[in-house]
Amino acid sequence: MFDQITIIGCGLIGSSIFKALKKKSSIKKIITFDNNKSAMEVIKKDNLSDKIVSSSAEAVKNSDLVLISTPSSSFGSVIKEIKESLKNGSILTDTLSVKKGFEVKLDEVNWIPSHPVAGTEKSGPTAGQENLFENRWTIITPSKNAKESDIKKVSLFWETMGSKVKIMSPDEHDKILSITSHLPHVIAYNIVKTVMGHDTKMQKDIIQYSAGGLRDFTRIAASEPTMWRDIFIDNSDLIIQAIDKFSKNLDEFKKVIADKDGKKLIEIFNKSKELRKSIIKAGQETDKPDFGRK
Amino acid sequence: MFDQITIIGCGLIGSSIFKALKKKSSIKKIITFDNNKSAMEVIKKDNLSDKIVSSSAEAVKNSDLVLISTPSSSFGSVIKEIKESLKNGSILTDTLSVKKGFEVKLDEVNWIPSHPVAGTEKSGPTAGQENLFENRWTIITPSKNAKESDIKKVSLFWETMGSKVKIMSPDEHDKILSITSHLPHVIAYNIVKTVMGHDTKMQKDIIQYSAGGLRDFTRIAASEPTMWRDIFIDNSDLIIQAIDKFSKNLDEFKKVIADKDGKKLIEIFNKSKELRKSIIKAGQETDKPDFGRK
Repeated sequence: MFDQITIIGCGLIGSSIFKALKKKSSIKKIITFDNNKSAMEVIKKDNLSDKIVSSSAEAVKNSDLVLISTPSSSFGSVIKEIKESLKNGSILTDTLSVKKGFEVKLDEVNWIPSHPVAGTEKSGPTAGQENLFENRWTIITPSKNAKESDIKKVSLFWETMGSKVKIMSPDEHDKILSITSHLPHVIAYNIVKTVMGHDTKMQKDIIQYSAGGLRDFTRIAASEPTMWRDIFIDNSDLIIQAIDKFSKNLDEFKKVIADKDGKKLIEIFNKSKELRKSIIKAGQETDKPDFGRK
Repeated sequence: MFDQITIIGCGLIGSSIFKALKKKSSIKKIITFDNNKSAMEVIKKDNLSDKIVSSSAEAVKNSDLVLISTPSSSFGSVIKEIKESLKNGSILTDTLSVKKGFEVKLDEVNWIPSHPVAGTEKSGPTAGQENLFENRWTIITPSKNAKESDIKKVSLFWETMGSKVKIMSPDEHDKILSITSHLPHVIAYNIVKTVMGHDTKMQKDIIQYSAGGLRDFTRIAASEPTMWRDIFIDNSDLIIQAIDKFSKNLDEFKKVIADKDGKKLIEIFNKSKELRKSIIKAGQETDKPDFGRK
């Protein structure tokens, strides 16, 4: 596939990619670099790079694929740093959660955008898991100018790590993710914000009795702040559309509860069960009670 | 503690109580009864009762404690059926998620209300888990007329199953649960409703890419419909108050996203992480990435 690749940005995703490739691919040399000093120390200590380098420009030299897995706000400066050092014909990819807007900036490099729809609430280079992409989807959103052979190489790259690959347009990607990922994160943050708006005694109670349902929401609300700031800013318009839909439905639902309309409630609940069943059937969720949580 | 007890209603909670008591208590005889025929078949098949009986009246004879774990809408009829057959001095308890309103109806029997704040999204007599109450809280909301010795017996009963016990007023209970449990369920149902309001193609995409966050919400939205219908009806007023607070916060949050106010977003996200940490520290959640889900 590739002889040498570079991973720039070694957080949850970057370190998971390193571990997955080491276990499952035949890539000879994987160079990992992170601008953050303490991340670089973990890279050394945990052997998350085949070579320790001191700059992103040095990191990309002779690499056939360069994967940038930083938050989008660092993206421009990374490109600037590495541009002159890229190997001729090398492919660039990324792991950003919002795709629109970036294609313009990156037309000058050989760039095949990808987004692995996988993660945990943990962050940083110690959070990596070699099986993170196993059975998850990676969405590739190539521009019109992208070479078919490059798209195939990037697809195979993700498939090697156990991922399934789907190709779509940036617009389609951002719309789908605004619903399956960005809206749930908005709602999780907002429910946490709402329960934390109580006095100290009540907060203590809320923590104690959180197993009644609340704790589920706190997981994705504990995700990496910088990454999520960038996502909310980059996909702001579509996220607001999703919030508006949610709010309209919530007003209707509130009326059903105020009216104590038992028949309508049962209808809503039965329909809700179906979505979970479909997600489990699609292999995207465990069927174990309570997520198999101990 | 008790020589003989009766469990009426053998769903997730009733069957978990049977299993927990069999493993952890010295109660000699536990009689389980359910009005539903197929539930009774599971009770026979899976040995979830020390004696097979054909009515709730028969089930409660000679029992020192009668626990009713049916949805609240069946509550009145169960009480009516068993009232004349109760052993003199026997204690009644329940597992209802809303406490206000029931004290009035039940003043004539020796009743100590309890609510184990534990569960999974599964339901029915096959869903029981012997460790369901381990390290969870059970809230007891005794009336003013309750005997101190009866309260102690019921507390010990839950503690035997590994639960921690807290005593409070029905009002306090219903307020806390409206926030820690009922609001999260409303929001989970509503997000599922919102994502399902799309066309067939989009629904397929939503299912495929649900690992981006959405799937977390579908768990509690798959809970037992009848039970949740009753909860939403019984605690309607407080739930609506909680929804109103949530909606007000969501409007504010939406403005922050529309303004692309990165600083404010980071503030919200950092604060959110704290709540999860507190819940984990309180022993009410796992610290494993992604709930330890496989």
